[in-house]
Amino acid sequence: MIVRDQPSALKLFFVLQGSIVPNIIGRIIGVAVLTAVVLLVDQHLVELPHVSIAAMGIFGVALSLFLGFRNNAAYDRWWEARKLWGAMIADLRTLGRDLSIFVGRGEDRAEILSLGVAFAHLHRGFLRSADVQAQITDWVGDNQAKALLARTNPADAALRAMAERISHLAAQDGLSGFGQMRLSETLAALAAAQAGCERILTTPLPFVYSLMVRRTTYLYCWLLPFALIEATNWFAPIFAAIVAYVFFGLQAVTNELELPFRNVQNGLPLDAMCRIIEVSAAEALDRAPPPLLSPRDHVLT
Amino acid sequence: MIVRDQPSALKLFFVLQGSIVPNIIGRIIGVAVLTAVVLLVDQHLVELPHVSIAAMGIFGVALSLFLGFRNNAAYDRWWEARKLWGAMIADLRTLGRDLSIFVGRGEDRAEILSLGVAFAHLHRGFLRSADVQAQITDWVGDNQAKALLARTNPADAALRAMAERISHLAAQDGLSGFGQMRLSETLAALAAAQAGCERILTTPLPFVYSLMVRRTTYLYCWLLPFALIEATNWFAPIFAAIVAYVFFGLQAVTNELELPFRNVQNGLPLDAMCRIIEVSAAEALDRAPPPLLSPRDHVLT
Amino acid sequence: MIVRDQPSALKLFFVLQGSIVPNIIGRIIGVAVLTAVVLLVDQHLVELPHVSIAAMGIFGVALSLFLGFRNNAAYDRWWEARKLWGAMIADLRTLGRDLSIFVGRGEDRAEILSLGVAFAHLHRGFLRSADVQAQITDWVGDNQAKALLARTNPADAALRAMAERISHLAAQDGLSGFGQMRLSETLAALAAAQAGCERILTTPLPFVYSLMVRRTTYLYCWLLPFALIEATNWFAPIFAAIVAYVFFGLQAVTNELELPFRNVQNGLPLDAMCRIIEVSAAEALDRAPPPLLSPRDHVLT
Amino acid sequence: MIVRDQPSALKLFFVLQGSIVPNIIGRIIGVAVLTAVVLLVDQHLVELPHVSIAAMGIFGVALSLFLGFRNNAAYDRWWEARKLWGAMIADLRTLGRDLSIFVGRGEDRAEILSLGVAFAHLHRGFLRSADVQAQITDWVGDNQAKALLARTNPADAALRAMAERISHLAAQDGLSGFGQMRLSETLAALAAAQAGCERILTTPLPFVYSLMVRRTTYLYCWLLPFALIEATNWFAPIFAAIVAYVFFGLQAVTNELELPFRNVQNGLPLDAMCRIIEVSAAEALDRAPPPLLSPRDHVLT
Amino acid sequence: MIVRDQPSALKLFFVLQGSIVPNIIGRIIGVAVLTAVVLLVDQHLVELPHVSIAAMGIFGVALSLFLGFRNNAAYDRWWEARKLWGAMIADLRTLGRDLSIFVGRGEDRAEILSLGVAFAHLHRGFLRSADVQAQITDWVGDNQAKALLARTNPADAALRAMAERISHLAAQDGLSGFGQMRLSETLAALAAAQAGCERILTTPLPFVYSLMVRRTTYLYCWLLPFALIEATNWFAPIFAAIVAYVFFGLQAVTNELELPFRNVQNGLPLDAMCRIIEVSAAEALDRAPPPLLSPRDHVLT
Repeated sequence: MIVRDQPSALKLFFVLQGSIVPNIIGRIIGVAVLTAVVLLVDQHLVELPHVSIAAMGIFGVALSLFLGFRNNAAYDRWWEARKLWGAMIADLRTLGRDLSIFVGRGEDRAEILSLGVAFAHLHRGFLRSADVQAQITDWVGDNQAKALLARTNPADAALRAMAERISHLAAQDGLSGFGQMRLSETLAALAAAQAGCERILTTPLPFVYSLMVRRTTYLYCWLLPFALIEATNWFAPIFAAIVAYVFFGLQAVTNELELPFRNVQNGLPLDAMCRIIEVSAAEALDRAPPPLLSPRDHVLT
Repeated sequence: MIVRDQPSALKLFFVLQGSIVPNIIGRIIGVAVLTAVVLLVDQHLVELPHVSIAAMGIFGVALSLFLGFRNNAAYDRWWEARKLWGAMIADLRTLGRDLSIFVGRGEDRAEILSLGVAFAHLHRGFLRSADVQAQITDWVGDNQAKALLARTNPADAALRAMAERISHLAAQDGLSGFGQMRLSETLAALAAAQAGCERILTTPLPFVYSLMVRRTTYLYCWLLPFALIEATNWFAPIFAAIVAYVFFGLQAVTNELELPFRNVQNGLPLDAMCRIIEVSAAEALDRAPPPLLSPRDHVLT
Repeated sequence: MIVRDQPSALKLFFVLQGSIVPNIIGRIIGVAVLTAVVLLVDQHLVELPHVSIAAMGIFGVALSLFLGFRNNAAYDRWWEARKLWGAMIADLRTLGRDLSIFVGRGEDRAEILSLGVAFAHLHRGFLRSADVQAQITDWVGDNQAKALLARTNPADAALRAMAERISHLAAQDGLSGFGQMRLSETLAALAAAQAGCERILTTPLPFVYSLMVRRTTYLYCWLLPFALIEATNWFAPIFAAIVAYVFFGLQAVTNELELPFRNVQNGLPLDAMCRIIEVSAAEALDRAPPPLLSPRDHVLT
Repeated sequence: MIVRDQPSALKLFFVLQGSIVPNIIGRIIGVAVLTAVVLLVDQHLVELPHVSIAAMGIFGVALSLFLGFRNNAAYDRWWEARKLWGAMIADLRTLGRDLSIFVGRGEDRAEILSLGVAFAHLHRGFLRSADVQAQITDWVGDNQAKALLARTNPADAALRAMAERISHLAAQDGLSGFGQMRLSETLAALAAAQAGCERILTTPLPFVYSLMVRRTTYLYCWLLPFALIEATNWFAPIFAAIVAYVFFGLQAVTNELELPFRNVQNGLPLDAMCRIIEVSAAEALDRAPPPLLSPRDHVLT
Repeated sequence: MIVRDQPSALKLFFVLQGSIVPNIIGRIIGVAVLTAVVLLVDQHLVELPHVSIAAMGIFGVALSLFLGFRNNAAYDRWWEARKLWGAMIADLRTLGRDLSIFVGRGEDRAEILSLGVAFAHLHRGFLRSADVQAQITDWVGDNQAKALLARTNPADAALRAMAERISHLAAQDGLSGFGQMRLSETLAALAAAQAGCERILTTPLPFVYSLMVRRTTYLYCWLLPFALIEATNWFAPIFAAIVAYVFFGLQAVTNELELPFRNVQNGLPLDAMCRIIEVSAAEALDRAPPPLLSPRDHVLT
C-alpha cells in the first residue's frame, strides 16, 4: 500500500511511484502513434473512412458501464478484504481481553493468545504464499509451528489447536461455561474472517468480465483514431493518448485491486497488520512490543 | 468457475474458453450482415430512411440503464451465493471446533460433524439437482443416507438429525447447556445460509426484466444499421458487430451469473467447496484428508 | 411470481404473459400515433417547431436518473422482502430444531411449532389482506385461531402466544434457561422479519417520486415527436413507440415491484413460501408433508 | 408521509398535494420567463451569444452526477431512519415477550414495558422537538414523566430507568441471569436504534454538497436559455420550465428526505409509529388498544 | 462539521464558509484566463486547432465515472466513520446500563464507566493526533492516565484495563458469569468500532485513484478551452470557470471527506461526540453533566 501525501500540482505529472503509467506506457504510445499515422495517411495519402464521434460516444457509454462496474466490484473486494483484516485485529484483541476475564493472566492465556498471533501469520502465509515459519516459531515454538504447517489449512489448524486448549482448560475447571462460550464465539468470528479472505483469494471476478472489458477497451482505442480525425484535428494524438491513459489505466488499477492480498504497490499491507496484531498481543502479555512497520520508500507491505 | 491467468494482449482475441462469443456468434454475424445489406441497398439501390446517431444515443442510455441494472443484480446474486457458501465453510469448521470444546473428541463429535458434511453435499445436490448419495454414504453410512434422501428437503433433514443427536447427548449429560446453545446457534447459521441459497435458486430476477432487456437489445441492434450508415461509413458492419458483441455479450453473461449454482463455465465451484469442507472435517477428525479439487482444463466445477 | 424459461428469440416478441405490454399498450400506441400526426402535419400542412435531439438527450439523462433510481429502490424493496421471508423460513426451521434440542419431541414442541406456522399464515394474511382462518385452524385449532384473529396484529399475537407457552414450560421445569434464551432469540428474529415486512408494506417510496417520474415520463414522450421529425424520418413512429415501451414499461414494472406482497404477476409467492414452511414443520413433526405448490400457468402465487 | 393511490393519467398533472411544484413554482416561472426574454431579444433586438446544446450536455452530466449522488444519499438516510424505527417497534414487542418469558405477567412486566413506550415517545420528542409529556404521563405517571424529561437525554434516561428496574428485579430473585442477559440485549438494541436516529438528526449531509448542488443547479438553469435558442425554437420556454421542474424539484425533494424526522409532507410518520408501539404494548398487557392513526387529508404524521 | 441552515437563493452565491471555493479559486481563475487567451488568439492572431465538444463529451463521461466513484467511496468512508462513532456512543451507554444490571450502582461501576469515557478520548486522541491527557485525567486520575498514554495503543490499553477490573470483580463474586459475558460482548463491540476507525484512518483510498483523478481533471480543464471556442462563443470563459468549479470542487470535497477524522470544516465533530459520551456517563453516574458543545461560527469540532 502506498502511503504518501498528495503531490502538489507541479509534481503531479511527474510522480511515477504509485502511478500505473509505467505498466501501460507501451499501450499509450501505441495508440498515440496509430492516431498520428491515421491522421497523416488521411490527409496526405488516401482518405480513410471516418467514424462519427457520436457513434464513439455510444460505444464509450457501454465501455464506461463495463469499466465502472468492474472498478466498483474490484474496489469492493479490496475494501472488504481490509475490513476482514480489521475485524481480525479487533477479534484477536478481544480474545486477549476475554482470556483475562475468564481465564486470568496465567500461562494458559499466553499460550492461547500466542496461537492467535500464529493464526494471523499462517493466514497471511496462505494468502501470500509466503513462508511464515520463522515468525510463528517465535510465538508457539518450533514443534507446534511445524505441526501446524504440516496441515492442508494451517490457519484452520491453529484455530483447532486453540479449541483443544480451551477444551482442556474447561475439563480442568480452569474455565467456566460462560468463558467457553465467549471464546468459542471469538474463534467463530476469526474463522468467518478467514473464510471471507479465502473467498476473495480463490474466487476472482468472473473471467468473462475480464475478457469483455479488455477486448472492448482495445477495440475502442483502435477505432478511436478514425473518429478523432475530424473531431480534434491536430490534438488527435494527444487526445487519443489521454483516453488510452484513462481506460487502460483504470483497467490496470482494477487488476491490482481485484486480488488485494498480493505484495504489489496497491495491495493490502498484510505484514504491517500482522505486526499490529503482534504489538497488541505483546502489550496484553506485558511484553515489550516490537516496533510498528514503517513504509519503506512510501510503500507499506 | 474458470481459473486462468489473464491472457497476453496477443492471445486476448483468440481465447474462446471462458468467452461468451461462441454463444452469441450467430447474433453478432447476423447484425454485421444486416448492416452490410442496409449499407449496400442504401448506396446502390434506394435511399433508406436514416436514424440520427444522436437518437440512438438516447436509446443507448436507456439500454445501458437496463443492462447495467440487470448486470449488477445478477452479479450481486452470484457473489452473495459465494458468500453464503463461504459462511457455510466457516460454520462447519466452527461446528468441529465447538464439538471439541463442548463434547470432546469422541465418537459423538465424529457423527455430528459427519452429518454436517452430509448437509453440505445434500444442499449441493438440491441446488444442482445432482445425485449425492455416494458422497454422503461415505460419511453417514448407507441407512442414514437413504433416510435423509427420502425427505422433501434432505439438507434440512440433516440439520434436524444433528439436532436430535445434540438433544440425545444433552439428555445423557454429555453436553452442557452452554454447548447446546452454541451448537444450536451454529446450526441456525447453517440453516440461514441454506435458506439464502434456496432463495437465490428459486427466485430469479423478475421475468419482466429479462423480457424487456432482451427485446430492447434486439430492437436496438436492428435499428443500429440505419444510424450507422452516415455515422461510420464502411466501418459500419465492424462497428455494428462490436456493439452487438458488447450488448448481447453482457446479456449472455448476466444469464449465467443470475443462476450461480448451475454447472456452467461461470457457475460457482460447488464440488470444490464441498471438498474443502471434507478436508476441514477430515483434518478435524485426524483422518487423512482427500486432495483438493484442481481445475480441469481451466474449469473448476 | 412468474416461473418460466427464457423464450427463444423467435417467441421473444410474442410472449405476453409476464410482459407489461398489455398494461401500457394504450400509451405506446398513443405516442406512435401522435408522432405520425406530427410528422404528417409537419411535412404536408405547416412546419412545426422542432426540438433538437441533443436537447432531448439532456432531458433523457435526467429521466434516466429518475427511472434508474426508482427502479433500484423498488427492486431493493422486492428483494429485501424476499430476504425477510427467506429468513422467516430459516427461523421457523431453527425453531423446530431448537425445540428438539431444548424441549424434546413431545406435545409441547408440536404446539409451539404449530403456532409458528400460524404466525407465518397470519403474517401473510396481513400483508395480502387475505383470509387465512382455514389454514391456521388446521394447525392451532378453531378456538385459538379465532382468538388470534381477533387481535389488531394477529401475527404479533401468535408470537406472544408462543412466548406464553415457553414461559409456562419453563415454570414447569420443562425448559432450561438456555432453552428460554435461544427460543426467545428466535422469536425476536421472527419479530424483526415481521416488522421489516410491515415497513415495506406501509411505507411506499415517497409519493413525490412517483409524481415526478410519471409527469416527467409523459412530458418526455409528448415532446419526443418534435425531436424525432428530423432525427429519424420515417422511423419516427416506430422509434417513438420503442422509447415509450422502454420508459412506460420500466415505470410499470417499478410499480409492481414497489409493493412486493400483492398477488400480482411479479409479486412474491407468499402462498408457496407458507407451504414450504408447512412442509418443514410437518417433516419436523414426522407428519406427512403437504405437496409443494406448483406454478399454475407459469405463475406461482 | 403521504398515503394515496397513484392518480390516473388525467389527474396526474393537477395533483398538488404531495407535489413539490408549489415550493418551486417561482423558480420554474422565472426560468421560463428568462428563456422567453432571451429568445425575443435574440430574434428581434440583438443577437446574443449562443451556447451549444452539446456543451450543456457535458454540464448536465456533471449536474446529474451531483443530483443523483445527493438524492441517493438523502433517500438512504430516510430509509435507514425508517428501518431504525421498524427495528424499535420489533424490539419493543420483543421486550414484551421476553418479560412474559422471564418475568411473568405481573406488575413488573407492565412497568418495564410502559417505560419502553415512554422511551419511544421521548425519542420522538427529541427528534421532532415535540412536547410528549402528556403521552408519557399516561404510561409512567406524572412523577416519572417529569423526572425523565428533566434529563439532558430523556430517552436514554428511560432506558436507564428500565435497567434499574431489571437490576432491582434480579436482586429480588424475580429474574434469572438468562433473563437479565436477554433484557440487557434488547435494551442495547433499542439504544443502538436511538443512537442511529440521533446520528441522522445531528449529522446532515456535508454542507458543501448542498452549496455545490444548489449553485450548480442555478448556473445551469441560467445558462440553459442561451443553449435552447437554437436547439428548441419556440419550445424553448416550455422546455426550460420542464428542465427547471426536474432539477429544482429533485433538489427540493432531497431537502425533505435528508432530514426525515421533521413533520413535513414527506417526513416519516413518527406519531403513527408510536401509536403502533402503544397498540402492541396494550395488547401485550391485555388492555384495550387505542385506535391506529389514519391519514388525515392523505397525510400520516 | 458545518451546522447551518440552507442559505436563501440571494445569499447562496456569497456564502464562503463551508464552500470549497477559497481552496480552488486559483485554479478556477486559471482555467477562465486560459480560455479567454485561447479565444482571443484564435479570433485575432492565428486559428488554433479545435476539439469537438462531442469529443470532450466522451472524455467527460470517463471523468464523471472517476469523480463519481471517488466521491461515493469518500462519502462512504465519512458516513461509516460517523456510524462507528454512533455505535460507540450507544455501546458506552449500554456499558453503563449493563453495569447497573449486573454490578449495581457502586464504585466499581463508576470506575469501569470512567475507563469507558477515557477510551473514547484516547481513541479520539489517536485519530486526531491530539493531546487528551487533561480530559482523561478528569475521569481516571493522573496515574492511570499516564499509564494508559504510555502504551503504543492507549485506547486498546483502556479496554484491557476495563477487562482487568471485570476479571477482578468476578473473582470477588461481584459479577455473575452472565454479567461477565455481557460486559465482554460490549467491550468487543467497542473494540470493533475502534478497529473500524483505525482502518479508515490508516487505509486511504488507493493512491493511484487520486493520481488518476487529479491528472485527468487537469488534462480535461486544459483541453476544454479548445472545445469551447466554437461551442459557446463569448460564454467560453464563464462556462470554463463553472466546469472547473464543478470538477475541481468535487475533487477538493472528496479530499476532505476521505479522511473524516481531521479537524477540518467537513470533518466529523469528534470533540462534540466525546462530550455527548461524557454527558451520558455523568447522567448515568448521577453527576452534573457538562454542557453539550455548540457550534462556534457554524463549525462543530
